[in-house]
Amino acid sequence: MRQLAGTNLPKVGSYNQNVVLDAIRSLGATSRVELAERTGLTAQTISVIVRRLLTDGLVREDGARPSAGPSGGGKPRTTLRVEPTAGYAVGIQFDPGLIAAMLVDLAGSVVAEVRREIHESVRPEEAVALMGKAVRKVVREARIPAKRLLGVGLACPGPIDQELGLVLYPPRLAGWEQVPLASLLAESTGIQVTIDNDATAAAIGERWSGVARNVGNFGYIYMGTGIGGGLFLTNQVYRGPFRNAAEIGHITVAPGGPQCYCGNRGCLEAVACPAAMVADAHKLLADGGAGALAEAYARDPALVDHDALCAAAIRGDALARTVVDRVAGYLADVSVSVANMLDVELIVLGGPALGPVGEIYRDAVAEALASRPIARRVHQVSVSLSPAGCDAGAIGAASLVFHRSYAPLLTTLLSP
Amino acid sequence: MRQLAGTNLPKVGSYNQNVVLDAIRSLGATSRVELAERTGLTAQTISVIVRRLLTDGLVREDGARPSAGPSGGGKPRTTLRVEPTAGYAVGIQFDPGLIAAMLVDLAGSVVAEVRREIHESVRPEEAVALMGKAVRKVVREARIPAKRLLGVGLACPGPIDQELGLVLYPPRLAGWEQVPLASLLAESTGIQVTIDNDATAAAIGERWSGVARNVGNFGYIYMGTGIGGGLFLTNQVYRGPFRNAAEIGHITVAPGGPQCYCGNRGCLEAVACPAAMVADAHKLLADGGAGALAEAYARDPALVDHDALCAAAIRGDALARTVVDRVAGYLADVSVSVANMLDVELIVLGGPALGPVGEIYRDAVAEALASRPIARRVHQVSVSLSPAGCDAGAIGAASLVFHRSYAPLLTTLLSP
Repeated sequence: MRQLAGTNLPKVGSYNQNVVLDAIRSLGATSRVELAERTGLTAQTISVIVRRLLTDGLVREDGARPSAGPSGGGKPRTTLRVEPTAGYAVGIQFDPGLIAAMLVDLAGSVVAEVRREIHESVRPEEAVALMGKAVRKVVREARIPAKRLLGVGLACPGPIDQELGLVLYPPRLAGWEQVPLASLLAESTGIQVTIDNDATAAAIGERWSGVARNVGNFGYIYMGTGIGGGLFLTNQVYRGPFRNAAEIGHITVAPGGPQCYCGNRGCLEAVACPAAMVADAHKLLADGGAGALAEAYARDPALVDHDALCAAAIRGDALARTVVDRVAGYLADVSVSVANMLDVELIVLGGPALGPVGEIYRDAVAEALASRPIARRVHQVSVSLSPAGCDAGAIGAASLVFHRSYAPLLTTLLSP
Repeated sequence: MRQLAGTNLPKVGSYNQNVVLDAIRSLGATSRVELAERTGLTAQTISVIVRRLLTDGLVREDGARPSAGPSGGGKPRTTLRVEPTAGYAVGIQFDPGLIAAMLVDLAGSVVAEVRREIHESVRPEEAVALMGKAVRKVVREARIPAKRLLGVGLACPGPIDQELGLVLYPPRLAGWEQVPLASLLAESTGIQVTIDNDATAAAIGERWSGVARNVGNFGYIYMGTGIGGGLFLTNQVYRGPFRNAAEIGHITVAPGGPQCYCGNRGCLEAVACPAAMVADAHKLLADGGAGALAEAYARDPALVDHDALCAAAIRGDALARTVVDRVAGYLADVSVSVANMLDVELIVLGGPALGPVGEIYRDAVAEALASRPIARRVHQVSVSLSPAGCDAGAIGAASLVFHRSYAPLLTTLLSP
């Protein structure tokens, strides 16, 4: 949208309803009075909207709690919460090595899950069949009413066309180009499918039910096979005009450094993804580096993989720790640049490749954010590890469905 | 605003009016039919809003042009344009060495200007007196009706508190701390004053009447004594939740490089501001570097300043060109990172320190943006030099007033 759009009156109602639901979700438990204060809407508007949310079963009223008035008396306030069982979504994390499907309730809790290892040679039709089976399995296990299933969310690595539901050209999946994965899966399951890249999905999941549920501006660094990113700015997911924003993995951290597949040099991904870490360790070992990994390396270099490397770093092996600390330093540099550029409140680290060394990364980023951003005296930027761990992609995928249905998107307020 | 706000109906009208005015401004000349298409508003709404804009004198109707219908016939369309004389603002660029004041019309043209060199030891009350005098002088020279003067905009270097109108702690101005410059100047002139940092002001100026008038997402790199930045994202100026965003000068471009005053190391500003370039040249000359600058350096190192360095680079001196090319490389790296992070359509380079070497910088950035961003096959990111040149700060300052009065800010749509 090059031209800023105007707004037509009928759009205001559903936007305000989602604003109120979003406030109830992020506050956990709240009252009508607090909702009016927080959203700037009138008491009457809040009252009408809450009645509709109660009727629709999206919100429940939890008895009464005493008013916080100075007299201790006054009219008791009832507490409003999101009703977790009001709706469910299946989130699928699709990775060249794994399909993970999770049934998640409206509060972000995982109700049922299934994992299937797959091979990189998997064909689109096989993958769709496996996903469809996984969806049916988690829905059956959870025994939820069919009409409560709001949809399926699909998180994929690499560039995708979110609007058309296409997987464009995923790294490591030969013969997958412009596969209409969302519509194939929708046809196979009869359920609406929302697709996004794994990093954006993970960021939306963190906002919906994770550490960022109350945070309007944050950056998410997703460590998978590659390094992706997600951005929430001014309470909205920021995708950019061509839907390619938040490529935090392709910020230059080592100028003139190794060539990245993207066309740039010295990108964060090129020096800090698992494959780069393993190459780094192999180089140190080939140059005669000693320590816990030397013997395995001598036997078979393939034994020194990302898992072995992280495990050795945790056990205190100096060589492994050197490699991990280098990555921690890059993450710290990138986090300071994101803070200086976007004035975010929070950096979230997540994704399967954090492995057991996530806390090392977090500590390095925390130290950098405490001492280096230009606005650190105005406000501190915090850093959190995603509590979703390896499941960040699948939980994020489910939250794509909730986000589509219930997030107060400013774009919905604008015409047409 | 941590909590997303709802919207109340009365706010919709003025927002839509500003959307329409913004569309007329950015399109240059347009019709009611085109406005309806571009904004998604109904023909009736457009008709009502345009009538109000015509009555208020903000827009003028330029006779008729034939309809673009295939028959060549049809009802003739009248052309709508912003009326440049409908309103004026005085923009003041305040720098430790200079006060520049410009009276600018609603279309962004400079009608009158005055410049006064000042010394770094200037006290706040002296500066305010000089600014007040400058405002009165340009208004008198331009002979505009007093009621057409919409306000004064003030662009200052360094961190400011935009809401309180405070200059916080400007570099190089000893004894200036938390000076309420906006209210002092408003008292002295009797005119409303809007303050912002020079880089943000320059970005808003570029959006109002410069190369970015039709661009919804762009980054501005402002080269002054330091290096500042401005961001427009999704058609809105992006300041961040604590109003410290867009510090593009403090993105790390030389990891482990020189200490920056901000607390970080190897910031763009630390290696690419005029003082850093001069230090770089001095080092090369002290190490025996030859060329056009060697003689002057031997006579008095102070003769090799930023102006002399840039002039020598333009004349083809190899040592000077090395220094300039190094900066061009840093600007290229930063521009690629901004593109990958925010998916912007355009990078603008502006500010007084571009000097005569702006085109060298632009060419390096253009080459990098053509070959390195990850989404370059989806869309090209372009780069432009600000046509405002050295006046970017003052013209930007004037546009702060127009932006405050007429920009369609989504925040105005939200409560309270």
